[in-house]
Amino acid sequence: MLYLDYAASAPIRPGALEVLTTSIKEDFANPSSVHKLGKGLHKRIEDCRVTFLEFLGAGKNDRLIFTASATEANNTLIEGIHLKTGDAVVVSFADHPSVTAPMERLRKRDIQVIELPLKKDGTPEEEAFLKLLNPSVKLVILTHVNNQSGVILDIGRWGREIKKINPGVHIHVDAAQGFGKIPFSLKDGIIDSLCISSHKIGGPKGAAGLYLHAGVKMLPLLYGGGQEDGLRSSTQAAPLIFSFCEAAREAMETMESSLEHVFKINQRARQCLKEKLEVVDFPFTQHTSPYILTFLLPGISSDIILRHLEQRDIFISSTSACSSRVKGANPVFTALHLPPKMHKFVLRVSFSHETTEADVLTFCDTLAIVYDELRMYIKYKAR
Amino acid sequence: MLYLDYAASAPIRPGALEVLTTSIKEDFANPSSVHKLGKGLHKRIEDCRVTFLEFLGAGKNDRLIFTASATEANNTLIEGIHLKTGDAVVVSFADHPSVTAPMERLRKRDIQVIELPLKKDGTPEEEAFLKLLNPSVKLVILTHVNNQSGVILDIGRWGREIKKINPGVHIHVDAAQGFGKIPFSLKDGIIDSLCISSHKIGGPKGAAGLYLHAGVKMLPLLYGGGQEDGLRSSTQAAPLIFSFCEAAREAMETMESSLEHVFKINQRARQCLKEKLEVVDFPFTQHTSPYILTFLLPGISSDIILRHLEQRDIFISSTSACSSRVKGANPVFTALHLPPKMHKFVLRVSFSHETTEADVLTFCDTLAIVYDELRMYIKYKAR
Repeated sequence: MLYLDYAASAPIRPGALEVLTTSIKEDFANPSSVHKLGKGLHKRIEDCRVTFLEFLGAGKNDRLIFTASATEANNTLIEGIHLKTGDAVVVSFADHPSVTAPMERLRKRDIQVIELPLKKDGTPEEEAFLKLLNPSVKLVILTHVNNQSGVILDIGRWGREIKKINPGVHIHVDAAQGFGKIPFSLKDGIIDSLCISSHKIGGPKGAAGLYLHAGVKMLPLLYGGGQEDGLRSSTQAAPLIFSFCEAAREAMETMESSLEHVFKINQRARQCLKEKLEVVDFPFTQHTSPYILTFLLPGISSDIILRHLEQRDIFISSTSACSSRVKGANPVFTALHLPPKMHKFVLRVSFSHETTEADVLTFCDTLAIVYDELRMYIKYKAR
Repeated sequence: MLYLDYAASAPIRPGALEVLTTSIKEDFANPSSVHKLGKGLHKRIEDCRVTFLEFLGAGKNDRLIFTASATEANNTLIEGIHLKTGDAVVVSFADHPSVTAPMERLRKRDIQVIELPLKKDGTPEEEAFLKLLNPSVKLVILTHVNNQSGVILDIGRWGREIKKINPGVHIHVDAAQGFGKIPFSLKDGIIDSLCISSHKIGGPKGAAGLYLHAGVKMLPLLYGGGQEDGLRSSTQAAPLIFSFCEAAREAMETMESSLEHVFKINQRARQCLKEKLEVVDFPFTQHTSPYILTFLLPGISSDIILRHLEQRDIFISSTSACSSRVKGANPVFTALHLPPKMHKFVLRVSFSHETTEADVLTFCDTLAIVYDELRMYIKYKAR
């Protein structure tokens, strides 16, 4: 089996698996219980929190809230910070649905939703974007690494540019695809909030985090026992948090070498695809994460390609798993300026530190075979 | 170690552990992915959903939404159903914080929150309660098994009484402490929604469910990829769902024999406590779950008792873990008519199918020793 859909979800790392299986057996108490079993778990959760804040380069009074998903983290922030009628939010429609779908609810509250304009290469249209930042804009959402284009934003630089123009704006970053893979730091205190995800870096599904810069005020989405500093009530899923923490530790420790490795893999894949399939086009080439490679393969619809690849036990995708339910035009493709007639030809492969050169060559060869077979079949049928 | 705090959280069942550890390794794909790895997971999640609906005695078009916690399930329902200014909600303040804390948010929306009146034994004050159900009441929240008093509500009977008076009302049930332990069925279609929890029945923390009767309309709390029938976006944590499903299967299959066993254990505990500690008082005796035993031990504050018990590796509680952060008067104790001067003497032990008679005797003997020692020490100091 050849799995090249790591951006959708990654297998659990051995260390994270070990932490989870041990913890799930031993750490059965409720971390909110006042006896020492509860207090012990509480203490270890607080240690994980500190670890994550260190990984993020966070400041002294910054906070991190554990949630069950990056979707929950994004929703909690977007719904939780103070926005009133007439305020505006700037967001790219190329972002993940967990960022764009909550905009519906904001619109119902008469909050204006303004599109962050992108260039054809998936990077922000700088001048046009900065011009939008009038004082009514209270929230700007940035995506550290776009799950489709792979485009990396230098969130520090963009943050500074944005705050030069509108110092009071809240900047939220969706870092689900970047955390543990592409370096960034929050140490300059420019970013107000940021979400991270466990299962994208080899931690278990069901864990994620919401970073909050010191002084950020918000209301919770979940009310109850007041866990997570009152911002996310629910029994804390201690084993998932500990395992997420271990996955993050492994990812952070090996980030540089993994990045170097995946960069080579990505280059090899591009080269091989170009060689084997003349029609292949790479629409995103500027500042992209090597972990994600989106390309167009005109001629055969991507759902047919995916089906033929999976028959050969190769698993890739065309868009984010969370966008797979989209009926009709994919708004992410539109925001990324992919021509409508090309939408059905989009393919996305995504890599991990474990992907080998042999893997990408196998993928590339198989894709070329599948493509040629299908083309021949279509030609044959057309005769 | 003697753990008697199962109502706070229960150890994972061996079968559920096996399912989890296997699934966490093998089921790494994203259940929303369109390839067969994703579709396979999707199918198995749907199978679990059907299993849960069967366990609940649900009807043909009823739904179950997987969430990350019972708190999330309660919040999703309370926030998601249509309530407008001037509507009223009836809820007992003896209920879990995940039911009572979201009332704050409803009050801000000018929705009236009316207290469901209880008798001294923790059961509803029937006549007074039913009198409250005027047409402006759109939501009634019932707790199947109260986590403090252990009182079991016959939700079918109460549902019918309520709907006789107010047929249009939505009845939501918090069944976190009862599901898999105390039988109930939703087959008569009277209950509109109900929440269940994984970690209370030996499943992993981080999984729960919200049952919705056919035709219930609501908005989601989490927007994004549209998972869970559009009502709970987030990558589905497949391994947690599968493990929760297995824990529920074990709990349902052994419910009757476990209940019989725990009933005996509870009787033995009451008897022993009465024999060894004359001052013990059991305020809740009518229709209580044998899994929960709350009693008053006047003389020594419960936090001191808990500390001395935990020094002997015995773990009990005084109230729900989610209420442990409450400063000052515990509103649950007040709603249950415990006299304010007795609040500091409340103790709660909770059992599982694995608790033995020897366990409760050890607990009882140790509590008597601890109590006597502390009394002597206090007397000595007072001289």
